Amino acid sequence: MNVAARPIISPARHARRLERALEATTAHGLDGLLVGVGPDLRYLTGYLAMPLERLTMLVLSSRGAAIVVPRLERGAAEAGVSGDLEILTFDEGADPYSVVVDRLDDGHAGKATIAVSDTLWAAHLLAIQAAIGRDARFGASDISVASTVLRELRMVKDAEEVELLRMAAHAADRVVAQIAAGRLVGRTEADVSHEVRERLVAEGHEDARFAIVGSGPNSASPHHEASERVIQAGEPIVLDIGGTLSGYGSDITRTLWVTGGDAGKGPDETFRHLFGVLHTAQAAATVAVKPGTACEAVDAAARRVIDAEGYGEAFFHRTGHGIGLEGHEDPYLIAGNAEPLAPGMAFSVEPGIYLVGRYGARIEDIVVCGPDGPITLNEAPRELYVVDG
Amino acid sequence: MNVAARPIISPARHARRLERALEATTAHGLDGLLVGVGPDLRYLTGYLAMPLERLTMLVLSSRGAAIVVPRLERGAAEAGVSGDLEILTFDEGADPYSVVVDRLDDGHAGKATIAVSDTLWAAHLLAIQAAIGRDARFGASDISVASTVLRELRMVKDAEEVELLRMAAHAADRVVAQIAAGRLVGRTEADVSHEVRERLVAEGHEDARFAIVGSGPNSASPHHEASERVIQAGEPIVLDIGGTLSGYGSDITRTLWVTGGDAGKGPDETFRHLFGVLHTAQAAATVAVKPGTACEAVDAAARRVIDAEGYGEAFFHRTGHGIGLEGHEDPYLIAGNAEPLAPGMAFSVEPGIYLVGRYGARIEDIVVCGPDGPITLNEAPRELYVVDG
Repeated sequence: MNVAARPIISPARHARRLERALEATTAHGLDGLLVGVGPDLRYLTGYLAMPLERLTMLVLSSRGAAIVVPRLERGAAEAGVSGDLEILTFDEGADPYSVVVDRLDDGHAGKATIAVSDTLWAAHLLAIQAAIGRDARFGASDISVASTVLRELRMVKDAEEVELLRMAAHAADRVVAQIAAGRLVGRTEADVSHEVRERLVAEGHEDARFAIVGSGPNSASPHHEASERVIQAGEPIVLDIGGTLSGYGSDITRTLWVTGGDAGKGPDETFRHLFGVLHTAQAAATVAVKPGTACEAVDAAARRVIDAEGYGEAFFHRTGHGIGLEGHEDPYLIAGNAEPLAPGMAFSVEPGIYLVGRYGARIEDIVVCGPDGPITLNEAPRELYVVDG
Repeated sequence: MNVAARPIISPARHARRLERALEATTAHGLDGLLVGVGPDLRYLTGYLAMPLERLTMLVLSSRGAAIVVPRLERGAAEAGVSGDLEILTFDEGADPYSVVVDRLDDGHAGKATIAVSDTLWAAHLLAIQAAIGRDARFGASDISVASTVLRELRMVKDAEEVELLRMAAHAADRVVAQIAAGRLVGRTEADVSHEVRERLVAEGHEDARFAIVGSGPNSASPHHEASERVIQAGEPIVLDIGGTLSGYGSDITRTLWVTGGDAGKGPDETFRHLFGVLHTAQAAATVAVKPGTACEAVDAAARRVIDAEGYGEAFFHRTGHGIGLEGHEDPYLIAGNAEPLAPGMAFSVEPGIYLVGRYGARIEDIVVCGPDGPITLNEAPRELYVVDG
């Protein structure tokens, strides 16, 4: 168990985030920004609740910020919300959606212009839409996703968030080292995957979210999880693992080659070449990270190296995704995304090369855009791990 | 670790569920039933995927069943989907929503009448709505929640599902016994809660979802989670714990009274009386369970006992919720729900009495409606656990 002190997001920080979100709500001409249970709610208020059929919803509007919770949850909300926030409750069986709609501004005659958190359940969204329809002030609604408003805030991590991402990254680094040092040959992928999850928790993660163990031909399937396939000497393993630590994500990929202790079962020439290209591509994408660089330019930096060696078709996913309170969030490093990087943005840099049916490799780090260039949070070596296994 | 063999939901069972869902889609006059990642997808296909920004969606329509997945996930979907199902992929960065809309029937000129899974993310729902708007066949959409169609199927558990619920219940029973036998006085609620989660996993749960430890005045807050409060001798503890075992939920509540070994610190007269009333109410609700009884009648059976003793105001939540692949699902045992119980329905029976600021108690079992009456899955004793702690 990692016992290093973890930074706390202070009530003052949450208050400032709420204030900025309120400003953005007005600036985007919204009558309300409606945030259900999930990462947006946690970001803005610190409140971590389970998504349930009983509505919990933060409402930001010209009337200020308030959170609507079941009467049953008042105590939990009072304890869970960071700082002061108006709490509105509804009784068991009562309609919570009209309570939400009552809080909306009615600046747009006959129509409620709102944004809802991206992960809000459809059941809640449709009920809100119906409640707006029933409200004499509105009738019609114009609904968009809250990320168009909140992404600007959430994409740029503050110092405490970067520190939590760093702690998560280092914990995942340690698990990679532990797995690479252990026995692998003769075990199933699923068994190794189970060990990864246990080790992620032992290293301080509260949630081990994924533990991809792709051996042999499975290493060529980027989102292969882990199967009953038994790992053989003389083949690669793609290890892509992560979870959350104090809510913040880890996500690392390293590629191993297991020899079973037989020097004759090392990586073949094709694999060594492929891996060298990949290693260069991942480094090229990382060094491309600096303020002002477009997200798509980072993707292109990796792709250029891989294309030049004729592996373009074998790299069929984006180069990376943002990370924070969600495992995948803005910004995405993908062709077509002209968003310029800014200091504090955090994302994965993870090109891969996959010869489908044969084998593949991927290298992934979490990188923060620093004021002058990349800050790589993962410290585990990036080269091919040739191990006995 | 519990190593008893777990029943498997067979591919034939999934095929039959899909067939019935297709029939229901037509019977409800839908142009499509759209099921995102989550419990509905798992129920219909066995496929367990993480909800992500890249769309994964089962589409049921007059054109049959197909699942739309990112090209990256084809391998995972092939391995994860039980039996045969058409898999449609989309390339990285491509629009998956038009692929979904292409599969819809166009029986309703100018309008797509669809239902979407209740937990589908708003971001996906709004994108589907927009794609329908762009489609020349439709333009408009009429959207409802899939539970109106799927609840009929999912509410009634088959034999394997009841067996998994039973295994989850027994695992939770064992954890209650372990906690009641251990040290409690002088520890924080949070510390005990952490032990509960570890024990749930040790007893075979893959996910320990909640571990409410409400001591002293916190026992009067039904959805209190666990705090840094130190448990004292001479007070009650409400223990409400659960998680999932092979996807199926456990959820049990028992009330303890810790004396710290001091015979003078047993429960006072008020608490003994309150608990006796509660115990009777919980039993009354349970015996009310039989095919044809309305959900609200089960709620009323508990409420009648509690009201008669003057505690009506102190029981301010519904009597229970359905349980299965979701911790809370249909049917809900609440006033106003006239749904008649049917054999195979599974739900919690969990009245509580809360003297806010002082103390409270709750008793909860998972109960299945059997052909002739209730089948209670939990076997842990229901009386007040007076323990040294």
